[in-house]
Amino acid sequence: MARTGADLLVETLVDNGIDTCFANPGTTEMHLLTAMTRNKALAMHLCLFEGVATGAADGYARMSGKPAATLLHLGPGLANGVANLHNAKKADTPVFNVIGEHAIDHIRHNAPLTSDIEGIARPVSRYVETARSADGIGDLAATMLADMAGPEGGIGTLVAPNDVVWSETAASAIRKNSLPRPEFDRSVVGKAIETLRQGETSALVIGAPFISARSPYLADAISRATGCTVLAEAAVARMQRGGGAPALERIPFHVDLAVKRLQDIRSVVLAGARDPVAFFAYPGRPSRLLPEGAEVLTLSAPRADLETALEAIASELGVTAGEPHVVEKPALPAAGAITPENLGRLLANRLPDNAIVVDESITSGVHLYPMCAAAGAHDWLTNRGGSIGYSLPVAIGCAVACPDRKVITLTGDGSAFYTLQALWTMARSRLDILVIIMANRSYRILNNEMSNIGAGAPDADSVPMISLTDPEPDWVSLAKGHGVEAKRVETTDQFASAFAAFASVRGPRLIEAVL
Amino acid sequence: MARTGADLLVETLVDNGIDTCFANPGTTEMHLLTAMTRNKALAMHLCLFEGVATGAADGYARMSGKPAATLLHLGPGLANGVANLHNAKKADTPVFNVIGEHAIDHIRHNAPLTSDIEGIARPVSRYVETARSADGIGDLAATMLADMAGPEGGIGTLVAPNDVVWSETAASAIRKNSLPRPEFDRSVVGKAIETLRQGETSALVIGAPFISARSPYLADAISRATGCTVLAEAAVARMQRGGGAPALERIPFHVDLAVKRLQDIRSVVLAGARDPVAFFAYPGRPSRLLPEGAEVLTLSAPRADLETALEAIASELGVTAGEPHVVEKPALPAAGAITPENLGRLLANRLPDNAIVVDESITSGVHLYPMCAAAGAHDWLTNRGGSIGYSLPVAIGCAVACPDRKVITLTGDGSAFYTLQALWTMARSRLDILVIIMANRSYRILNNEMSNIGAGAPDADSVPMISLTDPEPDWVSLAKGHGVEAKRVETTDQFASAFAAFASVRGPRLIEAVL
Repeated sequence: MARTGADLLVETLVDNGIDTCFANPGTTEMHLLTAMTRNKALAMHLCLFEGVATGAADGYARMSGKPAATLLHLGPGLANGVANLHNAKKADTPVFNVIGEHAIDHIRHNAPLTSDIEGIARPVSRYVETARSADGIGDLAATMLADMAGPEGGIGTLVAPNDVVWSETAASAIRKNSLPRPEFDRSVVGKAIETLRQGETSALVIGAPFISARSPYLADAISRATGCTVLAEAAVARMQRGGGAPALERIPFHVDLAVKRLQDIRSVVLAGARDPVAFFAYPGRPSRLLPEGAEVLTLSAPRADLETALEAIASELGVTAGEPHVVEKPALPAAGAITPENLGRLLANRLPDNAIVVDESITSGVHLYPMCAAAGAHDWLTNRGGSIGYSLPVAIGCAVACPDRKVITLTGDGSAFYTLQALWTMARSRLDILVIIMANRSYRILNNEMSNIGAGAPDADSVPMISLTDPEPDWVSLAKGHGVEAKRVETTDQFASAFAAFASVRGPRLIEAVL
Repeated sequence: MARTGADLLVETLVDNGIDTCFANPGTTEMHLLTAMTRNKALAMHLCLFEGVATGAADGYARMSGKPAATLLHLGPGLANGVANLHNAKKADTPVFNVIGEHAIDHIRHNAPLTSDIEGIARPVSRYVETARSADGIGDLAATMLADMAGPEGGIGTLVAPNDVVWSETAASAIRKNSLPRPEFDRSVVGKAIETLRQGETSALVIGAPFISARSPYLADAISRATGCTVLAEAAVARMQRGGGAPALERIPFHVDLAVKRLQDIRSVVLAGARDPVAFFAYPGRPSRLLPEGAEVLTLSAPRADLETALEAIASELGVTAGEPHVVEKPALPAAGAITPENLGRLLANRLPDNAIVVDESITSGVHLYPMCAAAGAHDWLTNRGGSIGYSLPVAIGCAVACPDRKVITLTGDGSAFYTLQALWTMARSRLDILVIIMANRSYRILNNEMSNIGAGAPDADSVPMISLTDPEPDWVSLAKGHGVEAKRVETTDQFASAFAAFASVRGPRLIEAVL
C-alpha cells in the first residue's frame, strides 16, 4: 500500500509524543482513520459525539501531561467539540485536533458539508492551520505540536483536506523541539516574602492547571513562616491532594461568599493563579473579587512550574515542606436521605486510594471538596471553563491516561445530559470509571442564580424552564442503554452499599443518587 | 416590575412574528428567560442540549414558514448548537438565535465563560450583532428579522449582554417590513422551454427549501409537454408529496449512481435547485455531477417561489397541472427479517394521512423515499447540510409547528446518538412524534465510504472504529431514560404491530427496528 499524507501525519504525531486519539470520523477522515488504526503506537477510542472526544482529550492531557489527538468530521463535527475545547483552553490543556476537510478543489462547489472550518476552530484554538500538500503535512503538524508544548501553550487545530491525506508522499516524519516554558519571576521573590508577611491580610493564591502533591506542603510552610493566608483558585485543572496533605481552601464560586472571604485581604501573591474574578457579573457587585486597592504581585504565570516557584519562596524563608499529618475523617452520616453533606461524609471515608475525582457537582458539591481533604491521596479535577457537560468526557481521558486508577465522576443530572454519550465509550473502552449522578432534577444552580442576578424569583412560569421534572430522567435506563451497569439509590445506606460494590470492581458503573 | 431590555426584546420578537422559542438557558439568560415566560405570546420549550434547540428551530421554520427563536448560554452554548445551525443554513431555514453574554464591563475580566461569541456565530449566521443598549436592542432585533425574511434570507444571531437586558428602557417595540424575496427570471421562460424540448436529454431539476404540493403536478405537465426528464435535488428541506401526486425522482446521493443517472443529460433548467455536486470528493471522480459541456439555465433561485416559476413555464406551454392519480401501493412484505426494502413497503402502506416524515435514514433509506410516493399526502424533510443528528431535533420543531399532524422520524442509530436528548423534550412538550431507529449497529455508510474513497477495505483494526457494537446500544432503555415509551422489534410482523399501536396514539414513542 502506498504511503500517503495520512500516514506521514500519523507517523509525525507518534514521533512527537502523541499516543492516543479520540475519534468520531466520517467520510473525509477515512484515510486518516485507516492510517491511524494501522499504526499500533496510537491507541484509538471511538466516541459517539464529538464533545466526548474533545473532553476526553482534555482529561488525558491533564493526567498525562501531554496532548492527545482528536479526529473529527469537518466543520460541524469540530463545532460539536467546541464547548469542551473551550473548557480545555481555559484549563490550559493542550489538545491536537485533526479535522478532515473536502479535497481542496471540491470546496468551491459548496457541497452540503462545506463550511468555514478555520472560522469554527479559531475561537478555541491558538494554532489553526490547513495542510496544503502531502509532503508538507508532517512538518506543519510537528511545528504546531512544538508550539503547543512551548511558552504559550494552547490548542492546535489542523485541517486536513482529503486530497492532501490521500496523496502519496516520501517525506519523513520529523521531531521538533519546543521552546522552554516560562519560569517563575526570580526577581520578585524578596518582594513576595515581604508581601506575605502582612499576616492574614496577605494571601498566597495558587492555582491554574496543576497543583502538584508537594505544593500544598510548601504553601503551608510558607504560611507558617509568614502568617499569610493560603487560597487556591476557585477551579484548578488538576490538584493532587489528600493523604495527609494540608487542606487547600478554594476561593468560593458564589460572588458574595468570595467577596466576603477576600474582604480583609490587602496584598496578594499570585503563584500560577490569575487575579480572581467573579464567574458572572451581578448588578451592583464587582467583577474583580479582591478589595479595591489590594496590592497584587505575580510570582509565576499559570504555565510556569508552581512547585519550583513555591520552593524558591520557602528556600528564601529557610523553611521546608512538612510531613503528611493524620487527618480526622468526618463522621459517617446517619441513615437517611442523601444530601450533599452526607455524600461528602461518605466519599471522604470511602474514596479509593489514588482515585481521580472529576468534579462537576456545582450546587451539590459545596461539601465534597473540603470533606475529601481527609481522604487518601487522590487527584481532584475541576472545570475552569464553566461549560457544563465536561466531566463524563474528561473522566474518559483520565481513565485512558491512568488505567490503574479508579476514576470517580461527580456530576449533576443537568450537566450530565450534555455529553451522556460518553457512557458508551466508557463501556467500549472498558474504562474504570464510577459515575455518580447527583440527581436533583433541575438546573439547581439557576434556582439561585435567577434571584441573585436580579431576574426575580422563580415562579410558576419560569420554574419548568429550569427543572428536569416532567419527565424525570431515569439514569439507570440511560446507563443501561449505553451498556453501563447502574443503580439508583435514595438513602445513605443504599449509596454506601452501591458505592462499595461498584468501587470494588473494574469497569464503568453509574450510581444515580436521588437528592 | 420595571420594564427592561429583555422585555423590549421579547415584545419586539413577538411583534415581528416570533411565537416559539427553544431554550437552554444559563445564568446570563435569566432576565431573557423570565421576560419570555412572562410574555404569553411566546411558547417556550426546554431542551437539554443546544443542538436540540437549534434543530428544533430549523424544523419549526420548515413547516411554519417563519423563524423560531433559540435562547442559548454564551459561546459554548451556541457552539453546541452550531452543527444543526449549519444544517439550517444549508436548508435556507431562518433561525433567530438569542445568545446571552456577560455584562459588557465583565468581558474584559476574562471569566471562565468569556469567549468570542461573534466568532463562534459567524460561520453559520448571515447576521451577527451584539446589542449595546437596552434602548437599542428592539430596533436591532427587528432589523435582523426583517433582513432574514428578505431577499438574502439567512440565520441571525443576536448577542445580548447581561447589563443590556437587565437595564430599564422605555423604548417601544417596532415592526419592520422586509424587502421582497427574489422572483423567478421571467426573461428566460422562452429559453427554458427551448432547453427542455430536447427530450430525455434535457432535465428540469427542482428543489431547495420547499417543493409545494402543486409543484410535482406542474413539473409533470411540463415534462409531458416537452419530453424532459424531471428530477429533484438529492436533498430538499421540505417536499409535499403523496396523495396521488406524480412521484419525484431524486438525484442519487452516491456519486457513481448520480453520475450514471445524469450521464445523458445535455441541458438543464434549474428551478430552485443548484447545479448538482457530489456530497464528497472521491479520487478520480468529478465534483460536479452533470456531464462536461451540459448547458445549464437558472429559472429561479432557491429563495424564489418554485410553484410560480413552474406555473409560468406551464402557462407558456399551454398546459395545466393534472389531477391526483391512483397509485398502486407496493406489496406488504412477507413475514421475516426487517430490511430497508421491507420497511419501505410497510411505511408506504401504513403512513398516517398528513404525516410529516423527517428522513435521516441514510444507508437504510434508499427504499423509503421512492416507496412512500404511493402513500397518502405527506411532507418529506431531508438534510441539506449533511451533519448527522438533525432528525430528532427537527421532528420537535415540526410537531410544535403542526400539533395536529403525526411526525415520523426515520434515523439510523449512529445518527440518533448525536442529539438523543431530543427525546426528553418530546416527552416534556407532549409532542406527537414516532421515532423509528433503524438499528444497524454501525456507521453503516462508512463501511461503503471507506472503500469508495480509496482508504482500503474495512479490516479488523478499522471496523471497530465505525461500528456501534460492543456494546450494542439499547434504544428501548435510552428512550425510557428520557421518559419515552419504546419497543424493540426484529421482524416485519413485530414492526407492523408496534407501528400500528404507536401511530394510533398521541405522544412520543420510539421503535428500535433491528436490521
